[in-house]
Amino acid sequence: MAAVKACNILITGANRGLGLETVKQLLENSCQKHIFATCRDPDGPKSEALRELARKHPSVITIIRLDVDDPCSIKESAKKVGSLLGNNGLNLLVNNAAIVARGTIHTSRVEDMKNTFNTNVIGPLLIIREYLQYLQTAAKASGTPGMSCNKAAVINISSVAGSMTRKPSNHIQSTVLPYSMSKAGFNTLTVLAAEELKADEILCMALHPGWVKTELGGEKAPLEPKESVEGMLRVIGSLTEKQHGGFLDYTGETIPW
Amino acid sequence: MAAVKACNILITGANRGLGLETVKQLLENSCQKHIFATCRDPDGPKSEALRELARKHPSVITIIRLDVDDPCSIKESAKKVGSLLGNNGLNLLVNNAAIVARGTIHTSRVEDMKNTFNTNVIGPLLIIREYLQYLQTAAKASGTPGMSCNKAAVINISSVAGSMTRKPSNHIQSTVLPYSMSKAGFNTLTVLAAEELKADEILCMALHPGWVKTELGGEKAPLEPKESVEGMLRVIGSLTEKQHGGFLDYTGETIPW
Repeated sequence: MAAVKACNILITGANRGLGLETVKQLLENSCQKHIFATCRDPDGPKSEALRELARKHPSVITIIRLDVDDPCSIKESAKKVGSLLGNNGLNLLVNNAAIVARGTIHTSRVEDMKNTFNTNVIGPLLIIREYLQYLQTAAKASGTPGMSCNKAAVINISSVAGSMTRKPSNHIQSTVLPYSMSKAGFNTLTVLAAEELKADEILCMALHPGWVKTELGGEKAPLEPKESVEGMLRVIGSLTEKQHGGFLDYTGETIPW
Repeated sequence: MAAVKACNILITGANRGLGLETVKQLLENSCQKHIFATCRDPDGPKSEALRELARKHPSVITIIRLDVDDPCSIKESAKKVGSLLGNNGLNLLVNNAAIVARGTIHTSRVEDMKNTFNTNVIGPLLIIREYLQYLQTAAKASGTPGMSCNKAAVINISSVAGSMTRKPSNHIQSTVLPYSMSKAGFNTLTVLAAEELKADEILCMALHPGWVKTELGGEKAPLEPKESVEGMLRVIGSLTEKQHGGFLDYTGETIPW
């Protein structure tokens, strides 16, 4: 089975939900690695589980403050991570942090639409911008041709809610209109970032985790975080340049835009 | 040839570019109609051509102040248009107003991304919300089954720049990243609005005008506004429920999301 063997990994929104579960599962495989687990408020009550994990694995996990909504915080985090990476570069950047906002044409609040766009689109773009130099370092250092998450990759945790290709199961989208619009913007970012990162052989793609029982996904979701993340890590570990600029779900199935 | 025979039409951004050309061409066909030509600053220098047109056709054109970036202005415009429409309703709403912002992953400015999202996505959503009651009135009043622009329709002037389905010609997208991301959000709005408006038999679709020589499209664009608008009005006039929730260009060709 394909496994994620990337040495240096950064995950945003790592203090809960899928982010935290991803950190946990990455710890389980035996490859030598370092995980930069970022979150908005490392010292707050919502980061206790992540702090606990970092205390148990101090040589593997470094918690870094990164508020996706704050360009200064993104810059500062990149400087700090850069100084810790030294000459090794960053192999895998997982843009996982996101917020959901509900609403229809009638009920969507302007503030919610602005906030989801800021957190789910503008933040990830600035993160790619600030961390690109470290991804380039890793891509150059790898010495292997082609693309893979072990060399240098940006994985954007998106959602089928951002897909415009209508299917019956998508009617749920219309109740999370601000979220859906932001994820479509995020998917566009993925496609256009893939164009820009191609020359550096940095893989970039969007991944739908499924509808998962998390704070974001809610109680009605059919999937457990464990199953979703197992699937996503399997997919991430198997990626090549063929999936560059693409959109897959946690089972590896292609999702139409 | 299919022609737009809608009685009451509202166009945003009607003072220049494709909006102004649309008003002009609608005047040329002989069907009885009323055009609510909206723009941000009806009394400003950039609206002189529209004012001139309205002076020549005072019984057909009413200029209405509508700033797409300002929710209060949208509400006020809807009240005013509503009072003028009386019991007839609005047959055709053309969300044409938009701004472009250039940039790549490296150069896109946060403010530009926020502004394009506000003007190109949030504004049109609020316009659909505020004018929906008048579209519903028109749909009910028509007495005919199915969908058409002469009954009740929302036409969202979008762009192929918002399409994520990659093709070689789309590499231009990566230099207008903020614009592309906003148009993808706008396309999502189109799809989800179409779901919500279906029960009222209000047609809703996205239309790509081509790359046109306007202030927005720039000098290098291959198409003249006249040709683009002729095509778009032909497409709009021929729409049925088959194109509901869809994405076409000015020649009538379907664009993949």
